[in-house]
Amino acid sequence: MLEDLKAEVCQANIELQRQRLVIYSWGNVSGIDRSKELVAIKPSGVAYDKLKPADIVLVDLDGKVVEGALKPSSDTPTHLELYRNFAEIGGVCHTHSTNATVWAQACKPIPCLGTTHADYFYGEIPVTKVMAKSDVEGEYELNTGKAIVQTFSSIDYGEVPAVLVANHGPFTWGESPGGSVETAVILEQVAEMALKCASLGGRLTPIPDALLDKHFLRKHGKSAYYGQ
Amino acid sequence: MLEDLKAEVCQANIELQRQRLVIYSWGNVSGIDRSKELVAIKPSGVAYDKLKPADIVLVDLDGKVVEGALKPSSDTPTHLELYRNFAEIGGVCHTHSTNATVWAQACKPIPCLGTTHADYFYGEIPVTKVMAKSDVEGEYELNTGKAIVQTFSSIDYGEVPAVLVANHGPFTWGESPGGSVETAVILEQVAEMALKCASLGGRLTPIPDALLDKHFLRKHGKSAYYGQ
Amino acid sequence: MLEDLKAEVCQANIELQRQRLVIYSWGNVSGIDRSKELVAIKPSGVAYDKLKPADIVLVDLDGKVVEGALKPSSDTPTHLELYRNFAEIGGVCHTHSTNATVWAQACKPIPCLGTTHADYFYGEIPVTKVMAKSDVEGEYELNTGKAIVQTFSSIDYGEVPAVLVANHGPFTWGESPGGSVETAVILEQVAEMALKCASLGGRLTPIPDALLDKHFLRKHGKSAYYGQ
Amino acid sequence: MLEDLKAEVCQANIELQRQRLVIYSWGNVSGIDRSKELVAIKPSGVAYDKLKPADIVLVDLDGKVVEGALKPSSDTPTHLELYRNFAEIGGVCHTHSTNATVWAQACKPIPCLGTTHADYFYGEIPVTKVMAKSDVEGEYELNTGKAIVQTFSSIDYGEVPAVLVANHGPFTWGESPGGSVETAVILEQVAEMALKCASLGGRLTPIPDALLDKHFLRKHGKSAYYGQ
Repeated sequence: MLEDLKAEVCQANIELQRQRLVIYSWGNVSGIDRSKELVAIKPSGVAYDKLKPADIVLVDLDGKVVEGALKPSSDTPTHLELYRNFAEIGGVCHTHSTNATVWAQACKPIPCLGTTHADYFYGEIPVTKVMAKSDVEGEYELNTGKAIVQTFSSIDYGEVPAVLVANHGPFTWGESPGGSVETAVILEQVAEMALKCASLGGRLTPIPDALLDKHFLRKHGKSAYYGQ
Repeated sequence: MLEDLKAEVCQANIELQRQRLVIYSWGNVSGIDRSKELVAIKPSGVAYDKLKPADIVLVDLDGKVVEGALKPSSDTPTHLELYRNFAEIGGVCHTHSTNATVWAQACKPIPCLGTTHADYFYGEIPVTKVMAKSDVEGEYELNTGKAIVQTFSSIDYGEVPAVLVANHGPFTWGESPGGSVETAVILEQVAEMALKCASLGGRLTPIPDALLDKHFLRKHGKSAYYGQ
Repeated sequence: MLEDLKAEVCQANIELQRQRLVIYSWGNVSGIDRSKELVAIKPSGVAYDKLKPADIVLVDLDGKVVEGALKPSSDTPTHLELYRNFAEIGGVCHTHSTNATVWAQACKPIPCLGTTHADYFYGEIPVTKVMAKSDVEGEYELNTGKAIVQTFSSIDYGEVPAVLVANHGPFTWGESPGGSVETAVILEQVAEMALKCASLGGRLTPIPDALLDKHFLRKHGKSAYYGQ
Repeated sequence: MLEDLKAEVCQANIELQRQRLVIYSWGNVSGIDRSKELVAIKPSGVAYDKLKPADIVLVDLDGKVVEGALKPSSDTPTHLELYRNFAEIGGVCHTHSTNATVWAQACKPIPCLGTTHADYFYGEIPVTKVMAKSDVEGEYELNTGKAIVQTFSSIDYGEVPAVLVANHGPFTWGESPGGSVETAVILEQVAEMALKCASLGGRLTPIPDALLDKHFLRKHGKSAYYGQ
C-alpha cells in the first residue's frame, strides 16, 4: 500500500545521511497521504545504509500501525501531532544536526541575521518552551509535538517551516518528505552562520524588516520572481 | 552565439559547488564579452548538477535577454552594474559561502590580518553600507550593485577584487568567470582565518603596510616575481 | 588463537580512521575474551591502512604477550586496568578525537546539555584528576588506568561509558570492541555540540533530571522502548 | 640528477593537497642531498595536480639553479637558510594551513596544552618576532629564514620541528621531505585543538613538565618505547 510514498520517505531518510545531518540512526523523516490519512515513517533504530522502502511503517493519525513488520520511530507521536495541526504539510523531518542542535540546547531562537535566512524563513526560528516535568514523564513524544504546536500559535507554520525543541534539536516540515529534508539542510547552514556571527561580536539583532520582506517574498507567495 | 563564453560560465558555476561554496542554487557566476557587450549568466534557481552550457542566458548590458529559454539569475542587475562600472573585469561571482557571509551579516569589513590575505587583496575587504529601506523596496538588485560601486569610490577594484554586501554575502570579480570563482574560494579561506583570529583574542589590527606591499606586489603588478 | 576476536579488534581499529577519529597511529582499540582472560589489542605505532588481524597482539591480564610478533600498544596497561575493574565491558577504545580532546585538555567534564548526550550517557562525562608527578614518572600507563577507575568510584561505568583523561584525551568502552568505537564517535559529536554551546553564551548547566531520565531510559535498561 | 630525491619531493608536495593543508599553490616542500649540497624544491605557482618529478627544481645552497626549466618557489631563500643552519634536517615544508596560520596571524606561540602536542613537540611552538620594515623591504624571503633561525637560538630545532612566522604562517621540518609534511599535518591538528581550548575558557597554561617529558621522551630519544 502507498508504495510511492514509502519509496519517497525511504529516499528522504537516506538523504539525511548523505547530507551529513545524522550519524547512526539519529533522525527520521515521514510523509503523509492526506486522502487516506496515513503516515509513512522510518522504523526505529534502523541504520540508513540498510533502509529499504519495504521497511517503512504505515500508521494512521492515531498512531496505529496499518502496515509494516517493524516498530515505527519512537518520535512518531511528535510527527502525528504536527500532521494533525499543520493541515498543509506533507512531510516532517527530525535530526540532531550539529549547529541547529546547539541553538536548541542553548534554548535560544535563531534570529534572522542575513538574507540567506530570509530567503527561506520569514523571521526567527523559534525555540519551544522547556517542557514541564509532568510533560516529560507523561506522553513525552506527544507532548513534544504539543509544545511545537503551541509555539506556532502566533507564527505561520508555512512561513517558518522549522522549530528548535528546547534542550533537544530541530524539526522541519514541508510540502513533501524531501522538502522537509531540504529545509533541515538549510536550517543547519543558517544555524552555523548565526553561531559564528555571535562569536564575532555579539550583534544578534535581526536584519531590517524591509530586507526580510524583500528576500522572503521574492522567493515565496504571489509576487515571487525567483526561479523559473 | 558566444558558445565558448557560455561553456566557460557553465563550468565556473559548476566549480562553485565542487569548491563547496554553495548548496542548492545559492550562487551564480557570469562572464562578459566586452566587444559584443553581452553578458552570459546562470539561469535562476537551476541546480548545478543539471546545468548545461545551453542553459546559460545571454543578456545585454541593459538586462534584455538576447538568447536563452530560461530566466536569468535574479541577481543579474547587480552583475550588470558591476560590468558597467568596473571596465576591466571579465567575470563576476556571487555566493553565500559560510565564513564570508558571517562577516557580511556582521556588517564588518575583513581586516588584512596576514600574508595569505595580502597575497590576493591589497587591503581590507570592505563591506557596503546597509541599504536604505527605499533602496530595498525599489530596484533592489540594481541598488545592490550601486551600493557596491559606491563602496569602491575610494578603493581600486583591481586591487581588492571582492566586497561584502551588508546583511547579505560576498561578490567577487576577476579577469574571467573562473578567476572570479578562484577569488571567492580564497575570500572564504581568508574569512575563516580572520574569524578564528578574532576568537583568539580580538587583535583585529591589520599587518604593517610594508608587509602588505611586499606580498601583494610580489604577485601583482610590474615587479611581480611569483609564479612562472 | 582467538581468530574471531582478533578480526573484530582489527576491524574496530580500522573504523577509527574511517570515522575520522584518528590520524596516523593516534588511537587504539582492544577486546577481551572473558572466559580465557585474554585481551586482543592493536600493535604500537602501526598505521591503520596496513593493519591485518594477524598483527593484533594477545596479552593476558598481567600484560604478558601470549601471541603476536609485534609489541602491543604502549597504552596496553591502561586498557588492562579497565578490564580488571570494569567486569562487564568487552571492548576499550582510546583516541585523540579533536573536540573530546579539547575538553580533556581544558580539564573540564562535559555537562549533559541536551538529549543527544542523554541518549547515550546518564550524566556528565567526567574528567580524571590531574595525575601527580610521581604517577607520571612511575608506571604511567598503569596509573592512567588507576586514575580512570578512581574517577568511577562514584559513577556507574555502565551508565557513563566514557571518560576524559586530564591533559590527554578520551577513553570509551562497551560490550564489544565495535561498541567502544561507536561510543567514541558519539562522544566526539557530543563534545563538539557542548563546545559550540559554550561559545554561544556560556550556559553550561545540565538539562533537567526528568529529561535525562526520559532519554537515557527509553534507550537503556528494562523499560527501553527505542529500536526494534 | 637526483631522480629519487625529486620524486620524493614531488610526492611530498602532492601530499600537502591530499592532507588538505593547501589550496591552489599555497605551500611548498623541499628536500636536501647533504652529500651533494643540493636542494630539490617545488617550482613557483604550479598546481599540485599537475606536478611531476621532472618539474622539481634543483638549487645549490646559494640558491643558484643547477637543474630544471622552471623557477623555484619564491620561498626558496627561506628553505635554504634553514638547511644552512639546521644541519640535521632533510626536508622543509611551508603551508598556510588554517589553524596554524591563525596562531601565526595572532603572533602567538601555541602553548603545549596536552599530550597530543607533547608527543611531537618538546614545548610550545614558537612564533618569530615581527619582522622590521627594513627586513621586509630588503631580502624578504632570506630574512624570513633568518628570523626563524634567530627564534631557535635558545630552542633545539630537533625537539621542536615547527615555527610560526609572525603574520604569515607555519614552517616545519624533519629528517625527510615526507617527514616535514607529517609534522605540518600534526601541527595543524594541535593548532586546532589549542584554538578550541582557548575558546572554552582561556586556560592557556602548559601541561606539567613531568607529563611533557613523559610523552615526548616515550616517543623520541634513547629511552623511547613507543612503536616497533
